[in-house]
Amino acid sequence: MKAIYYEGSKKLVSAPAAEALPGPGDVRIRVAYAGICGTDLHIYHGHMDDRVTMPQVMGHEMSGVIENVGEGVEGLQEGDKVTVMPLHSCGQCPACEAGHSHICHKLKFLGIETPGAFQTYWTVPAFTVHKLPESLDLKLAAMVEPLAVACHDVRMGSVEKGDFVLVIGGGPIGALIAMAARENGARVLVSEINPYRLELLGRLGFETVNPLDRDVLELVNGLTAGKGADVVFEVTSTQAGAELMTKAAKTRGRIVVVGIFNKPPAVDLHRFFFRELQLYGARVYETEDFASAIKLADEGRLPLGELITDVLPLEQVEDGFRKMESGGNAMKILLNCGV
Amino acid sequence: MKAIYYEGSKKLVSAPAAEALPGPGDVRIRVAYAGICGTDLHIYHGHMDDRVTMPQVMGHEMSGVIENVGEGVEGLQEGDKVTVMPLHSCGQCPACEAGHSHICHKLKFLGIETPGAFQTYWTVPAFTVHKLPESLDLKLAAMVEPLAVACHDVRMGSVEKGDFVLVIGGGPIGALIAMAARENGARVLVSEINPYRLELLGRLGFETVNPLDRDVLELVNGLTAGKGADVVFEVTSTQAGAELMTKAAKTRGRIVVVGIFNKPPAVDLHRFFFRELQLYGARVYETEDFASAIKLADEGRLPLGELITDVLPLEQVEDGFRKMESGGNAMKILLNCGV
Ligand SMILES: [Zn+2]
Ligand SMILES: [Zn+2]
Repeated sequence: MKAIYYEGSKKLVSAPAAEALPGPGDVRIRVAYAGICGTDLHIYHGHMDDRVTMPQVMGHEMSGVIENVGEGVEGLQEGDKVTVMPLHSCGQCPACEAGHSHICHKLKFLGIETPGAFQTYWTVPAFTVHKLPESLDLKLAAMVEPLAVACHDVRMGSVEKGDFVLVIGGGPIGALIAMAARENGARVLVSEINPYRLELLGRLGFETVNPLDRDVLELVNGLTAGKGADVVFEVTSTQAGAELMTKAAKTRGRIVVVGIFNKPPAVDLHRFFFRELQLYGARVYETEDFASAIKLADEGRLPLGELITDVLPLEQVEDGFRKMESGGNAMKILLNCGV
Repeated sequence: MKAIYYEGSKKLVSAPAAEALPGPGDVRIRVAYAGICGTDLHIYHGHMDDRVTMPQVMGHEMSGVIENVGEGVEGLQEGDKVTVMPLHSCGQCPACEAGHSHICHKLKFLGIETPGAFQTYWTVPAFTVHKLPESLDLKLAAMVEPLAVACHDVRMGSVEKGDFVLVIGGGPIGALIAMAARENGARVLVSEINPYRLELLGRLGFETVNPLDRDVLELVNGLTAGKGADVVFEVTSTQAGAELMTKAAKTRGRIVVVGIFNKPPAVDLHRFFFRELQLYGARVYETEDFASAIKLADEGRLPLGELITDVLPLEQVEDGFRKMESGGNAMKILLNCGV
């Protein structure tokens, strides 16, 4: 029974976890697997210290089994396989009032503002808990949260059967967007520079392009008879990505901004005007996206398991961070919290 | 019978117009009034010489009466009051094939790529001609084309009853957007720096703000209980406008890019992500927008006439350009082509 505490930039401490039973309305989950997200790496690097109260347990992609149920919790019980939609909204801000509570102006994100999943037992509000089908493997279930991001992105981009989709950036989220878009019937091209990821994506049946080797725009135009991409997902947060997204989209095409830009890039608003392009910001997920992700993961058509390149014991979380930093042969790294 | 020919930067020549009767499928219109658009000023300054074959007659906002009808033209006859939707699309490009012929990839814009309305008689393809109600004043009818732009912009922004709308830039197009948005039941705030235009817009009943005097964002938040604007129209093509548009829009708010940016501005894509903002490029108009504009102009509820600050004889077109350049006391300047 342990927890990994973040105590400041690149400082993690392993400590015994609290043994408290869940309070009213809460659920205590025995964590099986927890995925390492780019956000966790950002926290580890000290880039999010304004949002994190230290010491803090990070982690928000997970699967597990309910260990204890707090007073007043209905519909959940000990032994249920579950995952968590790690959003705690205020219910009162303009976003919540308009029905967009997933992007609440005072959103608390479990694993950032409040304790996360990198521990043996995780206690969360019952309303964040989603039950999983008994048939769903717990490793794959740890992919539900990032898959829900992809489901949200694809829904915001209104990807339809027959669409040509360009995904700029083929990391875990880009790969999941590619899968969700293909599931909707789209033809998907992924632009990525990491050779390992390119090889993996190619093996999963996606068309890929390395922008360092080839002109992506020329390729998109060639594959679409000069029309351009119906939908473009920008997942790199780079100036190059911001330039490619406007060039590659068709007239009246849809661009979904998934990447988190630290700094406003130059964006060709003239082309937005000239081609009547549309841009949609997309952040996290709504309940329906989480439900879609669970369903998709359980149906088994998506090669989710292929994205899991490493499963490390919880204690080796820093090895996971180092592997992600190296930009090398990794896609999704899971922590085994139940060992 | 004369025509004003553009022969290069700041060089206009008045010459007798050709007397040719319209060919098959064409209509010859006796022009009554022609509005001077910002685009005409750009041509005059030599900024569009790559699109203009000199000598060229410019002008595309107009009203008039049919003088002659070419062979094979149906539904139009001598004496009809008309205006022109100055778009000639190719019918075969990806935009045309997708039903977006108004932004055809090979669009010929009458008055830019082909001869325009700054002349006594203007011969145009019959399919560009829209009949006007007999009751519609020909000065107001010359406002139909820019009003159609505004109708398109407001439609692309899905402005609805009760929306709070911010229009950044209160020139002729901004003012018409404000009117069309108010007609849809929106509350409209216009941000503008020209004192003459601010006074005029205030007289027309719009809330106005001068960003040089007051923090627009603070005002928007104050007027919307902290929510932000439902829809923002960017009509200034400035870096300041590109910054204000993302700050002032509500969560999931809609931003319509109307201004023509010469250079890609820095755009806060992080805020697009964080607030799930939506951006829509909007260019010219579709047939339904032209029809809406004619109907609105004829119904008489919009104070279109108040925007016409000057009516000059055709020969004085350069006086009109100079007045526009001065950034002074002008909104829409019409040329009287029928004198
Ligand atoms: Zn809220
Ligand atoms: Zn075309």
